[in-house]
Order: sequence, then C-alpha cells, then structure tokens
Amino acid sequence: MDDQCYDLCTKLVSQSYIQQGKQAKLVHQKRIKHLLQHRKIPEDGWTDQTIELLLQELSVMDSNNFPDNCGVGEREARIFSSLVATRHYRFGHGIGRSGEITAIQPKAAGSSVMMKLTNSLMLDVIKISGIQSVALCFIVPMATGMSLSLCMLTFKQSRPNAKYVIWPRIDQKSCIKSMITSGFEPVVIENCMEGDELRTNLTAILEKIEELGPDNIVCVMTTTSCFAPRVPDRIEEISEICKKFEVPHLINNAYGLQCTKCTHLIQQASRKGRVDAFVQSTDKNFMVPVGGSIIAGFDAKLIESISKAYPGRASATPTMDMFITFLSMGSQKYKDLLKERKENYQYLASKLSEVASKHGERLLQTPHNGISMGMSLSSVIVKDDKDVTEIGSMLFTRFVSGTRVISNSSTDSTINGLKITNFGAHCDKYNCPYLTAAASIGMTRTDVDTFITRLDKVLKKYKSTVGSDVLSVEEKTSNDIP
Amino acid sequence: MDDQCYDLCTKLVSQSYIQQGKQAKLVHQKRIKHLLQHRKIPEDGWTDQTIELLLQELSVMDSNNFPDNCGVGEREARIFSSLVATRHYRFGHGIGRSGEITAIQPKAAGSSVMMKLTNSLMLDVIKISGIQSVALCFIVPMATGMSLSLCMLTFKQSRPNAKYVIWPRIDQKSCIKSMITSGFEPVVIENCMEGDELRTNLTAILEKIEELGPDNIVCVMTTTSCFAPRVPDRIEEISEICKKFEVPHLINNAYGLQCTKCTHLIQQASRKGRVDAFVQSTDKNFMVPVGGSIIAGFDAKLIESISKAYPGRASATPTMDMFITFLSMGSQKYKDLLKERKENYQYLASKLSEVASKHGERLLQTPHNGISMGMSLSSVIVKDDKDVTEIGSMLFTRFVSGTRVISNSSTDSTINGLKITNFGAHCDKYNCPYLTAAASIGMTRTDVDTFITRLDKVLKKYKSTVGSDVLSVEEKTSNDIP
Amino acid sequence: MDDQCYDLCTKLVSQSYIQQGKQAKLVHQKRIKHLLQHRKIPEDGWTDQTIELLLQELSVMDSNNFPDNCGVGEREARIFSSLVATRHYRFGHGIGRSGEITAIQPKAAGSSVMMKLTNSLMLDVIKISGIQSVALCFIVPMATGMSLSLCMLTFKQSRPNAKYVIWPRIDQKSCIKSMITSGFEPVVIENCMEGDELRTNLTAILEKIEELGPDNIVCVMTTTSCFAPRVPDRIEEISEICKKFEVPHLINNAYGLQCTKCTHLIQQASRKGRVDAFVQSTDKNFMVPVGGSIIAGFDAKLIESISKAYPGRASATPTMDMFITFLSMGSQKYKDLLKERKENYQYLASKLSEVASKHGERLLQTPHNGISMGMSLSSVIVKDDKDVTEIGSMLFTRFVSGTRVISNSSTDSTINGLKITNFGAHCDKYNCPYLTAAASIGMTRTDVDTFITRLDKVLKKYKSTVGSDVLSVEEKTSNDIP
Amino acid sequence: MDDQCYDLCTKLVSQSYIQQGKQAKLVHQKRIKHLLQHRKIPEDGWTDQTIELLLQELSVMDSNNFPDNCGVGEREARIFSSLVATRHYRFGHGIGRSGEITAIQPKAAGSSVMMKLTNSLMLDVIKISGIQSVALCFIVPMATGMSLSLCMLTFKQSRPNAKYVIWPRIDQKSCIKSMITSGFEPVVIENCMEGDELRTNLTAILEKIEELGPDNIVCVMTTTSCFAPRVPDRIEEISEICKKFEVPHLINNAYGLQCTKCTHLIQQASRKGRVDAFVQSTDKNFMVPVGGSIIAGFDAKLIESISKAYPGRASATPTMDMFITFLSMGSQKYKDLLKERKENYQYLASKLSEVASKHGERLLQTPHNGISMGMSLSSVIVKDDKDVTEIGSMLFTRFVSGTRVISNSSTDSTINGLKITNFGAHCDKYNCPYLTAAASIGMTRTDVDTFITRLDKVLKKYKSTVGSDVLSVEEKTSNDIP
Repeated sequence: MDDQCYDLCTKLVSQSYIQQGKQAKLVHQKRIKHLLQHRKIPEDGWTDQTIELLLQELSVMDSNNFPDNCGVGEREARIFSSLVATRHYRFGHGIGRSGEITAIQPKAAGSSVMMKLTNSLMLDVIKISGIQSVALCFIVPMATGMSLSLCMLTFKQSRPNAKYVIWPRIDQKSCIKSMITSGFEPVVIENCMEGDELRTNLTAILEKIEELGPDNIVCVMTTTSCFAPRVPDRIEEISEICKKFEVPHLINNAYGLQCTKCTHLIQQASRKGRVDAFVQSTDKNFMVPVGGSIIAGFDAKLIESISKAYPGRASATPTMDMFITFLSMGSQKYKDLLKERKENYQYLASKLSEVASKHGERLLQTPHNGISMGMSLSSVIVKDDKDVTEIGSMLFTRFVSGTRVISNSSTDSTINGLKITNFGAHCDKYNCPYLTAAASIGMTRTDVDTFITRLDKVLKKYKSTVGSDVLSVEEKTSNDIP
Repeated sequence: MDDQCYDLCTKLVSQSYIQQGKQAKLVHQKRIKHLLQHRKIPEDGWTDQTIELLLQELSVMDSNNFPDNCGVGEREARIFSSLVATRHYRFGHGIGRSGEITAIQPKAAGSSVMMKLTNSLMLDVIKISGIQSVALCFIVPMATGMSLSLCMLTFKQSRPNAKYVIWPRIDQKSCIKSMITSGFEPVVIENCMEGDELRTNLTAILEKIEELGPDNIVCVMTTTSCFAPRVPDRIEEISEICKKFEVPHLINNAYGLQCTKCTHLIQQASRKGRVDAFVQSTDKNFMVPVGGSIIAGFDAKLIESISKAYPGRASATPTMDMFITFLSMGSQKYKDLLKERKENYQYLASKLSEVASKHGERLLQTPHNGISMGMSLSSVIVKDDKDVTEIGSMLFTRFVSGTRVISNSSTDSTINGLKITNFGAHCDKYNCPYLTAAASIGMTRTDVDTFITRLDKVLKKYKSTVGSDVLSVEEKTSNDIP
Repeated sequence: MDDQCYDLCTKLVSQSYIQQGKQAKLVHQKRIKHLLQHRKIPEDGWTDQTIELLLQELSVMDSNNFPDNCGVGEREARIFSSLVATRHYRFGHGIGRSGEITAIQPKAAGSSVMMKLTNSLMLDVIKISGIQSVALCFIVPMATGMSLSLCMLTFKQSRPNAKYVIWPRIDQKSCIKSMITSGFEPVVIENCMEGDELRTNLTAILEKIEELGPDNIVCVMTTTSCFAPRVPDRIEEISEICKKFEVPHLINNAYGLQCTKCTHLIQQASRKGRVDAFVQSTDKNFMVPVGGSIIAGFDAKLIESISKAYPGRASATPTMDMFITFLSMGSQKYKDLLKERKENYQYLASKLSEVASKHGERLLQTPHNGISMGMSLSSVIVKDDKDVTEIGSMLFTRFVSGTRVISNSSTDSTINGLKITNFGAHCDKYNCPYLTAAASIGMTRTDVDTFITRLDKVLKKYKSTVGSDVLSVEEKTSNDIP
Repeated sequence: MDDQCYDLCTKLVSQSYIQQGKQAKLVHQKRIKHLLQHRKIPEDGWTDQTIELLLQELSVMDSNNFPDNCGVGEREARIFSSLVATRHYRFGHGIGRSGEITAIQPKAAGSSVMMKLTNSLMLDVIKISGIQSVALCFIVPMATGMSLSLCMLTFKQSRPNAKYVIWPRIDQKSCIKSMITSGFEPVVIENCMEGDELRTNLTAILEKIEELGPDNIVCVMTTTSCFAPRVPDRIEEISEICKKFEVPHLINNAYGLQCTKCTHLIQQASRKGRVDAFVQSTDKNFMVPVGGSIIAGFDAKLIESISKAYPGRASATPTMDMFITFLSMGSQKYKDLLKERKENYQYLASKLSEVASKHGERLLQTPHNGISMGMSLSSVIVKDDKDVTEIGSMLFTRFVSGTRVISNSSTDSTINGLKITNFGAHCDKYNCPYLTAAASIGMTRTDVDTFITRLDKVLKKYKSTVGSDVLSVEEKTSNDIP
C-alpha cells in the first residue's frame, strides 16, 4: 500500500492507528532496504512475515504474475496446480538464461533479484565461515558431484590435452562419477596411514604429476570433509604443488563449510598456493533440502566462466531455500549453530569413547577430522568380520540414521570401471573394523544421548545373539524404542 | 487412523457417522492403491486433498520425519526454516544416491516411492503424447541443455575417439553450450530455405559424417520444437542415416511433447531408424516451474546408463512438481489441454494473419511447425532494420511476453567460441525481418485476443513514431493497458 | 518495497526489467486503492496473489506483528502455534472491542480496516442480491439463531414490557431456541395449507397481536428461506401489520440472499411496511465455512444499536473468510452463481418430477419456494410410514447429503419446553410423507444428475426390500457407488 | 495407506525401507490412538506433521470432502475460495447443530470428533491449571462477555422472576453489556480500598441480596482477573453467601486460568460454596487469536444446559485453534509457560519498582493480583491530571502496547444506561493517578526489559515537555526506536 492507500484507510480507522500501522510497515521495509543495499546476511534473523513480504514483492515482479499479461512465447511459466504455485511462492521462471546460470531474465526481474541477492548472501556467509578471501560464488541446482564435473569441464576448455584427474582416494561414488562422467581418467593416490588417520600421500601426487605431465592433467581434486578415519587432505601443501606445476586445484568441500578445520585449510591454501574452485553442498551445510551446491573461488573471472558453462536456466528452488534460510537464520544464529556443532563434536567424542571402553573398544584418534569420528569394532567379531555391518542395520531399525560400519573384509569393487579395493574404507586395508558417527550442523545434545543409549543396547544385543550363528530377522528388527 | 482409532472415535461420535467418514477415507485410499498398482496418470485428476494425503503418507516415511529419530550422519535432512520445510512437504532427502539419480535411498523410502512413481507416470504421459514405443524415462533436475550434455557424455564413454557433434543449426545458446561444455566440437549444418521454412539439409549431414568418420562423431543432435520459420528437423531421415552409420542420435525435444507434429516424428524415427535419447523440459510441456527435464528413449539399458552417469543425489522439486501436477491434472485434462493448444494454434494463425494483412504484412507459411509462427515485418522498416526489434520491447512494456523480433541485419556472433552469422535467425540471412509468436500449452483464447489487440496498437504506434527518428523513452514505455 | 528499494534492485537487475516489475506491482496496488476508495465488491475477482498481498499489508498493521513491539497488557495477541498463526494470516486481535463489535481497535488497525471494508462489501452484495434499500449491515461471528437472539434482546431494551414473539411456525430448533434463550415466549402461528404449500396465517397474527397487546410483543419473527412445502412467509403483509401496530419485525433470512424470491420480499416489505432487521448466514449464502451471520436493516441507527449490544471483541474468522471470498469472487461471478442456482432449481425440479413419476409419486407444487422442493412418498409405504425416513439414511450412506424425509406420523415433540406436534413438518399433519431437496448456491448440474441416479436406485431398493419386514444392516448400508 | 498400499510400495522400493517407513507411520498413529483413548493433552507437544496428519484424517470424514458426494441440502459446506478452504484444513461444517453447540453433526463426523476431543483436552488443562474439581466445559466461539450473557440467560430460565445481577464493580464495558444485553439490571457493589488494593465489599453484597430478595436475583457475577489496583473478588466468601441464599454464582475468569491466584480461588470456592459457572477467554489464556471462550463448571448438567441454550451451529475456528495449540504445546510446555509467567511477574514488579523510584514514584502494593500491577504517577502531573493519559499514547507510538494510564479525574460515564463515576478506575476516586502493566502468558524477559527502557525514556520526555503547556504532535509521536 502506498501513501494514498493509507490515507484512504484513515476514512475507515482513525489516523493515529493507521499511522502506527504504517510505521510498522516501514520497519519491515527498512530491513528489506538494508538487505538490498548491503547484500549481506542480516545479523538477526527476520520473522517469517518479513520474509514472506519480500518474497511476495519479488514474485509480483515476474511476468507470469503480471496482471493481464498475455504470453505468446514457448515458455511462459504458467503453473497448472495451485499447490505447486503456492509452494513456489508463484515464482515460475527459475534462474538464469540459456546463456548463463547467473544471468538475469527479462521476464523474471523478481527471480533475478532473488538469485543475485542469494549469491551475495552466500558469499558473505562463506566469509563468515572462515574463507575470508573468497571472491565469487554461485548456487547451482545440482548435486556436488555434478558441480565438480562442471568445474572440470570448464577447466578442460583451456587445457585441450588434459585427460587425467589426480585424486587422493576418497571412497565416495559421486566423486568418482564426477570424473568418469566428464570423460576424465581418475588417477588414484592411495592414502597413508598415520596413527589411526588416513592422510594424503604428497610424494605420490608429486610423482604422478611429473610422470603424466602437467598439461595432461585436468586438475588435482582434493577433499576436505570426509568420514573418519580419513581426514581432510593436506590442502595447503597440494595447493603449493598445483601452483608450482600450473595444474588447477579443485576442492570437494562437500560439508566442510560448517567446520573451521576445513575452511581454514582452504583459506590458507588460497594464500599460499593455487585453489581454482571449491564446491560444497547447500543441504549439508545449511539445513535445507537436498538439491543445490555452491561453486566458489578466489578468482571471480574463473568462477564466472564456470557459471557460463551451465547450459540453460535452472530450478530456483535451492536458491529460494537458501534465501529464506539465510534471512530466517541471521548471522548470529549461524554462528551459534557452528559453535554448537563444535561443542557437540566434543560431546559426541567423549560419550562415544565411554561406550567404546564399556564394550572393550576404543575411539579412533583422528584429530584432523573435525566432523566425523570412528569407534573400533574389534572385539565384537565372532566369526566373520562381514557380519559386523549388521550393527548398522540394527541401529537403523532403531531409528538411528547416519552411522556407517566398515568391516574391512578386503574385497574389490568396480565403480564406473574403476577398480577399488575395499571400497568404503578409503584404503586397501584398515587395521580394524569400525563404526563412524558425525557431528553435523543442527545436531543436538539429545541426538547424541539417544544415539549412545541405542548404540549401547545394540552392541549388547549383537554380542549376545551373534554367537547363535544367524540373527533371526525378528531379533534384528525388533524395535526397542517406546 | 487405523481401525482401532475409528473404534475409539465411536466413543465420541455415533458409529454410523464414523463409519461413513471411514468409508470416505477408503475412497481416497482406493485411489492411492490404484495409482501404486498401475503407476499411470489417473484418468480424472485428484482433488488437492487426496494429493496432500498421499504426500503426507510418503513424507512420514522419510527418516528426517521419523519421530524420535536420531541422526549422526553428515547429512540428515534437517530443515532449519519451517517455511522451507512446509514448501517441501517436509521432504528433505532429494532423489537418488551418490550412485545413481534413480536409485532408492534407504533413509528416504517416501521420496524414493515418489520418484519411482513419477517416472512411471511420466512414461505413461509420453506415450499418451504420441510416443507409444518409449521404453524408459527419468526426470532429472537440470535444464534441457545440461541433460543433453549428460547424454552426450554418456555416449562418449563407449565412443572413446568421438569428438564431433553433427548439429543442424538451431540458434539457441544452451544448445551450443551443451556441446561446448561437454568438451565436444559442434559441426554446424546450415538449414535450407524451402518456401518460408528453414529445413534440415540432409545431404550436408551425410557428407559430414562421411568426411569426419562415424567413430569420431559423438552423435547427431537434432531439434524438434523451435521458433518459426525454422521447423522440426527431418528426424525420420536422420534416424535412418544414424542407423546406417551407427552414430548415436540425440533429439532435443524441448517443448515438443505438447505437439503431435513433434512426437509423431520421434515415434516414427524410432521405428525406422535410430534414436538414442530424446530430451524435453518439464516446465515447457507440463506447466510447472522451471527446473527439470526428462531424458527418455527406446532402449531401457541406455537410458539407465545415462541415469547412472549423474553423480550424486539431486533436488526432488521437479519430480514433486510433476507428481502433484499429474495427479491434479489427470489424463483427461491433459488431453484436453493438448487439444486446446492445437485449436489455439489455428486461432492464433488466423488472427495473426488478419492483423498482418491490415498492416501490409503476411503470416509466414511454415506448416511443419505446429507451435511457433512468424509474421513478416517488411513494410514497417523505415531506416534501419535493426530498429524493428524495438517492437518486441514495446510489446513487453505492454505486458505481452514471448514474442521475438528478428531483424536479419546480418552480423556475426560468437557463442562459446563458435562463430555464427546472424545469430537468432537460424540461417545467415532470412528474406525479411519478422516477429514470432507461439501457441503453447495452457494458452487461452483470451491470450490470443489480447495479444492481437496490443500488437495492432504497437504496430500503429511504431509506424507513426519511427519517422521521428528516435523514439522518446516515454513513447516507448507508455502503457496503454487500463 | 518503495522507490528506494526498486532503485537498489536496479543495481542487481537492469532498470527496464525492474521498471516493468514495479509497473506490475502498481496494478495490484491500483486494485487495492480502488477497493479502499469505493468499498464495493470488485467486478472481476482478484487473483489469490493480490488478495494475499492485501492481507499481508493489513496484517503488518496489527500490534502483535509490530517488529520490536513489547506487550505488557493482559491481551497481546501472541500466537503460540505457527500453524495457527499462518492460518490466520497472523491476525490475532479479532474484531471489535469490549464496547462494540464494529468498533475499531487501537492495537489492530489492520484487522479494523478489514472488518470495516468487509462490512461495506457485504452491504454492496446485499444490494446486488436484490435488497437495494438496505442501510447498514455487519457480520457477526455467531450462528443465525444467536444473532436473532441479539436482535430481540436489543429490541427488548426499548420495550420493557415485551415478552412474546409472534412466530409463524417454522420447524427449526435454533429458531425456537433463539427466543427461549433470550427469555421470550414464542407464540406459535400455525401455517395454512394452500394447495401443496404451507403459508402464513395472517389473520391469526393480527388476532394474536390484538389479543396480547402490541407493547407486550418483542417482535414478529418471520422466515423467508425454508424447507418445502413451507414457503416464505407473507413478509409484505406482515410488515404492514407490524407498521400499523408498531411492533418490531425481525426476518430470519437464513439462506435467502441467494434467492430473489426472498430478497424481493424483504425489499418490498421495507417499502410498504416495517422491517427492523433481517438476519442471514454467511456460510449458506456465500460458500464459506460455518461461523458467521449478517445482521442488516434499513435503519442504520437501529443496526448500530444491535452491534453495540454484543459484549466484547470477537473472532475475525467469518469476516476474513468473507473478505477473501468477496475479493476472489467478484460481483460478476457472484451474479453468475445466482443465475446458475436458479437454473439448477429448474433442472432439479424437472428431473425430480421425472423420477417421481417413474415411481408413482409426484413433485409437490410449491412455486413460492425458490430453493427447496418436495417429492411425495405415498406409494412406497408398506406398513408403517415411519419407515420411510429410512430412505434418507440410505441416500446418506450412498453419499447423498441434504435430503430430508418427513413421515408425518403425527407425534408430539417438546423443544425447549415448547410442545410442537409433528415437529419437522411445519404443520400438525401434512397430507403425505415426502422427501425434500434444495438447489443452493454452488450446486452443479452434476450434483443433480448424481442425486437423481442414486435416488432412483434407492427407491427401487427400498421398495424391493421393505416387504421383507426388516432391512438388514447390510442392505441398508451397502454402497453402490463405484 | 493401508497394508496393501505398503505392499505395493515394496515393488518400487525395497521392503526393509518401506517397513521402516511404515514403522514411523505407526508412531504417529500410536500418538493419535493415545489421544483418542485418553483425551488428555499429551505430555510432550506433537510435531506439526503429526498434527496435520490428524487434521487431515478428520477432515476427510466430513461430508463436504467426501469424494463424489452430492449435496442437495440448503447447507453443504461448499467452500468457494481455495485460500479459505486451506486455512480451515477443508473443514466447513462448524461445530454443533441447531439443537446444541456440543451436539455431533451427521454430516461432519470429523469436525464432531475434533470438537469433542478439544473440549476434553480443555477440561484436562483446566484441571492442570488448578481447578481440579471442574466437571465439564465447552468452548464457544463467542467473546467472554457474550458467554456470560448465555450463562445468565440460562440461569434465568429456572428463575422466572429474576431480574438483578449483583455485581462487584469491575470497570470493563463488555462485562456491563453482558448484563444489559441480556435484559438484566446490574446492581453495582462498590469496591473497598484496603491499602492500595480495591477489594470486594462483602457486607454490601449480603445486604443487597437480602434487600432485593434471592428469587429476584439472576446471579452474583464476580471477577477474578482484573487490572490492578483492583484485585480478584473474595470468591470463596461470596460462594458461601450464594450457597446460603441459593443464588447462582457466575465467575468472570477472563484471563485467570494462567494464574494460580485465580484458579485456586475458584477451586476453593467450589468446595466451600456455590459456583455455577466460570467463564474464560481462549485467546487470553492460551495464545490463540481472539474468538472463543470457555464455559466451565462443577455441575455437568448445568453446563450442558448452557451448551443447549446456544441456538445453532457455530464457527469451529476457536476450537480448531485450541486443538492445534494443545497438541503442539503439550502439558509440559504449558506448565513451563505458567512458571515463566509467574517469574516474569516478579521480574516486572522489581523492574517497575526500580524505574518508579527513579522518577519519584512507587509500585502500588497489590499482592492479591498476580497478573497486573500499577505504578503511581503522582509527581509527573504538572497542571491537569488528565494530561497524564498522554503517557499511554507516548508509549504506544514507541511500540509499547498494553499499558493503561488512569488519571482519576473524577468524571461520570454512562455505559449502556448505567451511570458510573470515574469509569476505568474501578472506584469513584483512587488516591493517585497510575499506570498499569501486566505479566501475561507468553511474555518474555526481553518484553520486560524493553518496556522498562521505553517507559523510562517516555517519563523523562513527558516531564521535560509537559511544562511547555501543550505537547506538539511531533514531540508526542516522534519515535525513538531504531
């Protein structure tokens, strides 16, 4: 409503009350203005009301919502179902254009503003997370793996002979696929065991680059966030190698934004050596539904060229989810969540250590991994160490999700044509079977307590029943939860 | 509620009324059962209530919604904002796994059922649209262009030397990018002018394949739906060539599902020759927000291998939008929409022809294009034919979206390194400037009438003001709409 | 967003697109302005988007939504559940004050504007419905019966000795309760049979007024909309009697706004005689959930005094439902609905007549009732005419709601101490059992067709099974519906 | 989904995952079952998902949602606007029947279950709040005042000669209207000053009853929750008087459920003497939007007879709001809220006392009032004590709502014909002007802090500007809030 509208309201309700209402509206507007001006995540989260106000203001700016618009194109963002329209706040045009995913759309000024703003907010948040030198980023509605592909394919455009990706082993399928699908050949660098930790073999990388020749290498793809006992790669050292050999360096930082151990590495690497792009998931770092990832880097031009490589416009959903979430969260709450995560990590470690001792096991010592941790499962094995994975299923049927049990019964897997021994363990043979658990953003102390209680019960049950050779289905799935 | 719940209700409300309410519930359930059993789009659209019932039933099956679930993984689909949770019906896990985009997720049984079902419904709808022999399809949350890339990259895996894409010219950036981004080299086949139509040069294709050698060719990428005066490629003949030379054939059917002229071509081509995959947009064919495309084909194995190439899980939004839309629409309404579109095409053609005559212009004769049509803009040009594009802007500020004005003032563009003369015209020089309009699904007769009225006004205004050399900004943007 | 906000947007998206978006916003705003200015139902219904825009604008004006508001009163409209807040568009203060239900609230300028506007729109719609002389009305969140009580209690305040309500019999419990609860004594005026119709006995009214003395009479309470074979009271003649004797005249027009037969009567009565107030339901006339009624009249002062009699603020829900519905509907659609209702009435009559003949029954001739109609059930009776009510249950279990079967097996009922013979039939003994059906607003031709088909089946089944003395439960409830 | 549906799902997704999803569904169902069985507020609040599941289950049981239902009645709960339908979870039939507001509706089994359940939950919550002996209650969608009227009108039915209401003065308009509107004559009992407190004059009540004669008295209407310095009436003693004289006793407990000082009084009174009914607001006690009140009592039959007095069905909104809120809150959170309120009361008292001292004022000593408190405004007065009310406006424009400033400049008001001196002060002349503030449920410590800061500023400003005779409008409304 504009001033005239408010004036008209005073014919229905006395002026001083309307004045007060208008005043309140101005407060919302002031926040919106501040956001448009500074394009940073607000310190205090907004109420849902202010968020919806802004979403509506932007939504009416898109052509599919123009009153009396007539559309005679092949794509007019008509929406059939009102359920669908509502869940998208009546945005229909997605983001980007055939030209570029960060391009503005003439038909969709509102969507374009939202997209530009959200990318700005994201840049701000990446800085808050610890990567202060980041120059540009954009949200892309694709999985992390697909985004890694997009980066590598872009690198390739200026490296016509490049074919190999130097890849310190991380046993995650989408990672392998991102290389294979792009038509590249992964060159696996096996990890070294240092104490309980699995760490990057720098020498092997060096040797491989020299062996294959830098021009034939698309990039070195490193990983920060990963399951223990693997720990983040030696990013700083690798970045120096990449700089020296002029080989691109791509970092898979999937859920690393939430952990300063990871962001600090990236920030340092960018100072000391070469980091071309780092890619992370929106859902794993910011508590939104699966669907988007963020491609970021320290050279704006390079990141722009990646954004231009995406052919066509795309779903605005991951962008909108982030937009709403950032406005609702505010930087203060984000920082609190990061802090709580760190505390929960410590709490989980101490509790898991306790329950491990109780059952004659121990917490693996992996201090470089700030998110995931492992607990040995040596003593529980009776006959075949493969059975140990049963513990994961037993936990799942007791509503514990997210644990992984690695039996280390050395077998070979073939992932997209790539033969990998003991896939899942990040190495050909680890010295014991183990179970992993992680402290990720949004986890609560109650989650930890519940997990420990249920784990304790499951370990007891497993040990008592495994002697009888085969677990009956009932025993496996019986659910203790009230 | 189960039988016990209903029994308990009878202590509050008399049994016969509860019985009747339960009966009503059974009707909803019967529909759900029928859907799960036949996995086809229902004949009559469901009410929003039944749709929401099913969405809720599925949503509770995902681990992030398990009451008392405790998540200790790195990705637990926690959702921070309740606005975000609500707009996703509390689904958070997306679709697919790191393995494959059509894989089921242990943590997300509900999402997985929705994904599988929606792909089945889509298959059914593709058949209804006229491609009866389609064997498999899946929805992927990426733009059409990115999906074309994914197909080509998959083809490449079994054609190690392939590098070229034979490409009958279609002036659309994302199409070009889909090849360049994937690392391939587009081989442009210029169109032939036949009457007003721009059509495929079959001889040139043949010659190019022979010249480059089939093994060096990733695929021939053809296009069905396109802006007039270009018309769908000679898909049938090309499929026969592809079969003969054992070259993959990829069809860009972006918005062609809605038009039997396009679907008939694909169906016939699959019978006579080789069609590896055809790709279409969800939003352009089914009135959902931008975000997804459908990869389909006649060889289930091949389509599966493409689905396996997508690295990682992905946004469930395009799938959910289609799921809701199909259930809400029903096959009957879908068929009605297709029929209305065809009628509107005829109506638009006759109306546009009228207004063209009135202004000394004519409708271009492009009978092979069943969606888009062109009207000449020869007589309106005063000085420079470039000015003619102004007509498009004038229409847009009068809330007409979707027209394109092509001036044919021969200039060169470079799209991702590819030099193209007179980009936008699908040929180096067309014989007159023109304006295009399309009849796409969901358009109404009122859209046509409004468009014609506004076009008439704009043409008048343009002719009367263009003499005065420069259109003042005011004149251009003044908005006649009441 | 204000101009500054739009300017800031141009730093993200090019000016011309932002300009266009702003233009679109202005169209919404123009509609809102027009509404505030004229306070009439818009001719064309608004989109949900414009409606929600306005609701949000108003909602932010209420103190419970003031950013940084601090509430230290006993009632601050805090809302615990976000589900509840959302469903009320974050309005919490209700309408009215302790003083008066149409009073504005300092703490709730937005709610107050909505309330004032909606009452204005309602006044406009009552005029459109045929009561052009109506002077004032207000929506009250109470049932029609409670509203009738409120009117009578207000009348009583200036008629200290009044005790009786002259009441042409209408067999509806809430009507009787409205008098009893208010502490008045109903004086029943039995209806006369004229052909099939049950009509007002004017002479009896006259005599009763003279007998009891006008000062002892609170009002004559008449009824327009009612179940056939009763027809609307002779409102015009009664209004003349009321004028002559200076007795208030209160009209129960429950669902009469939708029918010109009723509104015409009220309009004429107000010209010729005395009508103090007429009361109608919001849900029955305007397709909103149950909850509100409208008190209207031709003397603004009197209606105001009734509004002042309501002690305390009240639910804004019926007001908001009407607000949304009026804006969404528009006057054109409202008129269409009224027209369709009339046509459906004719259609229902002809179809019911057909099915009646088929079963040896007939349509009762009640031309003065424009909504409800009756069909005789004489021939179906085998033993006891009470059994005939079974037909209603059989229809209900076959998902036909709203029919009433009157057996006329003369028995006495006592409603709140008032003895009434053969309650439900509007007279002590009608000449045959019958079934009623009505054509009310929103009904479709399909409803009629389905009803007739199911009725036909039920009549067949009833006749075939009733001979076997007792209907088994199964037979009664078996459901033929596919 | 039933077992067959889940089985069909296993054809799409592996059985163990479906099994787990089904398991999760059972947990929701178990909660619903528990609720239906015990009809008590759950200890832990439900998630919104479980609440919506239940609402949907109930909603499908109503006839307006029956698939293929055909409605041929005059009231079929058709809903025009989908916005309206959605906000009511597609419930349309309201609650109650023409017979009775707590009656079940054949057409609306789901609504009826919700209504019955909610009334049960409310009974449980009243007990938790401290009135353990309550026998029955029901939610009625009317303001407290209108509900008091309904009670009195019901009392009247068995006391034909009753005309007077003995009423210890409480200066609230709706209270007075509740008597006048019902046609009764309020007999004002002036309060006594005891220290700072205004308390009931028991002797005066006794004398009045004897003077007027018990049979001529409808009831004594007492008040618990009220603005300081008035305190709750001496309910226990009055109940004994009522018992002795066989006069009904009606308690206005508007926002007293949240305060044990009030509930304890009612509980004790019911033990020692006579309490016929006590009435409270839903919004003031349970953080829902305005709209409902609760009529409760210790004699189930009497409460039933009041529920039967409401003529007609009514809005289900207050019931649904309470239903959602109770399920979402759970008893634990409710108890926490009560506890916090008590603590905030103490905190507010201490802070207000501080700021009072600072400005040469004092906190009024009213220990019997557990919700509201007063601070003297003696020293700030310069010329006319009427000006002092300006402080309230100044606070309001600074976004402090809910304070009341009483100037005590003795003037006469006439409320519905009842002459009251110095209306607002609960007595003819209090010994100083004062400002009140309250600690009500849902208030936060931040509210208190903000209030105190703003009050301090306003008092300073008021004192500095009031000397200059007239406050300029600017000065009054200038808003210091950032």
